[in-house]
Amino acid sequence: MSGGVTAPRGFRAAGISAGIKANQGLDLALIVSDTPATAAGVFTLNKAQAAPVLVSKDHLSKSGGMARAIVVNSGCANACTGPDGLQAARQMAADTAKVMNCPNEQVLVASTGVIGVALPMDKVHRGIPAAFNALAPDQGAAAARAIMTTDPFPKESATTIAVGGGTVAIGGIAKGSGMIEPMMATMLGFVTTDAAVPKALLDRALREAVDDTFNVITVDGDSSTNDCVFVLANGASGVTIDESSYGAFVKGMRDVCRELAMGIVRGGEGATKLVTVNVTGAATASEARTCAKAIANSLLVKTAIHGGDPNWGRLIAVAGRAGVAFDQSRATVTIGDIVLFADGAPHDDRAPRAAEYLKGTDLTVGVDLGAGSASSTVWTCDLSAEYVRINADYRT
Amino acid sequence: MSGGVTAPRGFRAAGISAGIKANQGLDLALIVSDTPATAAGVFTLNKAQAAPVLVSKDHLSKSGGMARAIVVNSGCANACTGPDGLQAARQMAADTAKVMNCPNEQVLVASTGVIGVALPMDKVHRGIPAAFNALAPDQGAAAARAIMTTDPFPKESATTIAVGGGTVAIGGIAKGSGMIEPMMATMLGFVTTDAAVPKALLDRALREAVDDTFNVITVDGDSSTNDCVFVLANGASGVTIDESSYGAFVKGMRDVCRELAMGIVRGGEGATKLVTVNVTGAATASEARTCAKAIANSLLVKTAIHGGDPNWGRLIAVAGRAGVAFDQSRATVTIGDIVLFADGAPHDDRAPRAAEYLKGTDLTVGVDLGAGSASSTVWTCDLSAEYVRINADYRT
Repeated sequence: MSGGVTAPRGFRAAGISAGIKANQGLDLALIVSDTPATAAGVFTLNKAQAAPVLVSKDHLSKSGGMARAIVVNSGCANACTGPDGLQAARQMAADTAKVMNCPNEQVLVASTGVIGVALPMDKVHRGIPAAFNALAPDQGAAAARAIMTTDPFPKESATTIAVGGGTVAIGGIAKGSGMIEPMMATMLGFVTTDAAVPKALLDRALREAVDDTFNVITVDGDSSTNDCVFVLANGASGVTIDESSYGAFVKGMRDVCRELAMGIVRGGEGATKLVTVNVTGAATASEARTCAKAIANSLLVKTAIHGGDPNWGRLIAVAGRAGVAFDQSRATVTIGDIVLFADGAPHDDRAPRAAEYLKGTDLTVGVDLGAGSASSTVWTCDLSAEYVRINADYRT
Repeated sequence: MSGGVTAPRGFRAAGISAGIKANQGLDLALIVSDTPATAAGVFTLNKAQAAPVLVSKDHLSKSGGMARAIVVNSGCANACTGPDGLQAARQMAADTAKVMNCPNEQVLVASTGVIGVALPMDKVHRGIPAAFNALAPDQGAAAARAIMTTDPFPKESATTIAVGGGTVAIGGIAKGSGMIEPMMATMLGFVTTDAAVPKALLDRALREAVDDTFNVITVDGDSSTNDCVFVLANGASGVTIDESSYGAFVKGMRDVCRELAMGIVRGGEGATKLVTVNVTGAATASEARTCAKAIANSLLVKTAIHGGDPNWGRLIAVAGRAGVAFDQSRATVTIGDIVLFADGAPHDDRAPRAAEYLKGTDLTVGVDLGAGSASSTVWTCDLSAEYVRINADYRT
């Protein structure tokens, strides 16, 4: 189904320009549930955590996992901003609680943009009532745009699932284009559902869904100070999720998170190609993921794919240095379904076919480590000169 | 002192074009000692080891650490080439041993270039006698050029030290521009000395010198299948190194290795700036190095430096996600000597001064983790659009 955070019943959203971004683009988003919703969150494991991350963790804990609203600004990360920054994040929640007429701790806060710069609180203070006035059930797309920074397009996803004799919708939005190798969460992701979900099940579903979606993408190997994914479940569908319907619910959550996560990679800074990295034949699942991430983050792999160069030796070189069990005599390297190395010998004569395949924009590369039977899939993008341009001039 | 591998007495070298590179550049180097030299080597820890790495390890072992010659080709890495590749590396050594009239195992072999492509043995076979005929005490510079691939300039270094009542020379050459985050050794480095050094001391000196020179550089975070550093000590100076003169000798080795290692970074693919990353205040030396390498490999840090953007938040974000002890309230971030974050608060008003500093080409950035007293220094380079261009089109 189309739509994002306002696809489920009982949610409204807004995205406005509060003047935080220099270019006057949309930069303040508000997502609200008409009734108090069960809430869960996962946060960056970066030890330099931004003020909004600290405040949202505190609020989720104090509210016992209940929330009415998520308020988000782009254009300033409010990270590494000291006690003033912490105060600003708390004020942002308090301003939102005031217009929503709810307790402060039922507001979750997120920020994204430049690190180390103070949030312009006068603009936020004026913007929040304006965003409140703009709230509507059809403004999810505006919220998706208002959380963007270098993102080339907004990321929305929604699905419905038939469970417990009724129909439940799950929707979400996400942003993120650089500083993306999420550790337990991505840059910013917000998921809503009109199912009623007990707090413990919602926590579990979010962690499960995130683990093989947002947590297996990488654009540039860097993990943000501001990463978080929130989910709000308001029960407006009249359907309650329990252990018997949990499997269907988490599948729906995963579908939404996967579409958002892949959207982040497709819209990675400077990206022109989406690359699926499959590692098989690993000794353990953890080693499979370590190796897949190492391949997905290799500049040499990413630039070769950008140039359409079937330089498969770079794939095997990364596998060899990734610190995982690897048997060169049993390893296999594939680009698409073309086997370029197997049984210890190269098949470089197939390189022209692989070069033809690499002209596409939705690509798969694979390495079998020849060391076991575990596997992992990671999504990444190519590395272009445009990436360098974007990040060499980010603040200027 | 000027010069490289032929600066010490009793060494000759040659660099010729054997037609291995498509552009007819110099691609075959020979370095020989007039008498059998004590030899030591360190090799890549990549599990996908190239044929010449396997053969040189075998020869060092079989010869008991004695060598007469090092033969090197560029333009083809002879890696991931199966049994045929192993045979080719052995033949390269045998051809050299024949012209040198020495046992096969007294020849060390190295290759660098594209992975997974067969070595053109007819060209190597014809090239080795030609290189032998070109050997001369003033051809060290030609050898330095003949081992280059994407290197923008050759790397040579030499020094003399007064020890044991005499004077000893140490010289070296190195290559490497991409796939550079050496694990125990760099791409290719060759060091010579006219000191007489017992095998055990030479091994120890090489490992010590490499550990804080070649092992603390990174261009792109990838580790080659072909990395190796060899040292030959032929005793032509008449001076023998023992425990009492070891300190002076290893200092000389380290000076030569450092100059070569920094040359590799300065000539990193697409590099325009040399960046020294200092991490202080770490809980352990190992964590200091881990964090310094994470900063040195961060695309966001490298692109910001390329653009002259004092985006210090990226430095602290990497420190926070590097998996090391980190206390944001006690951490400090510096660019040059300009403190941009300290005591939990930003000093972004100093960013313009830092931007001015970043216009230079020899830069230092520092992060104090506020978690202890250990420190580490790593050298890296910036990341430019030229890097992407070089690596997107490497094989074409």
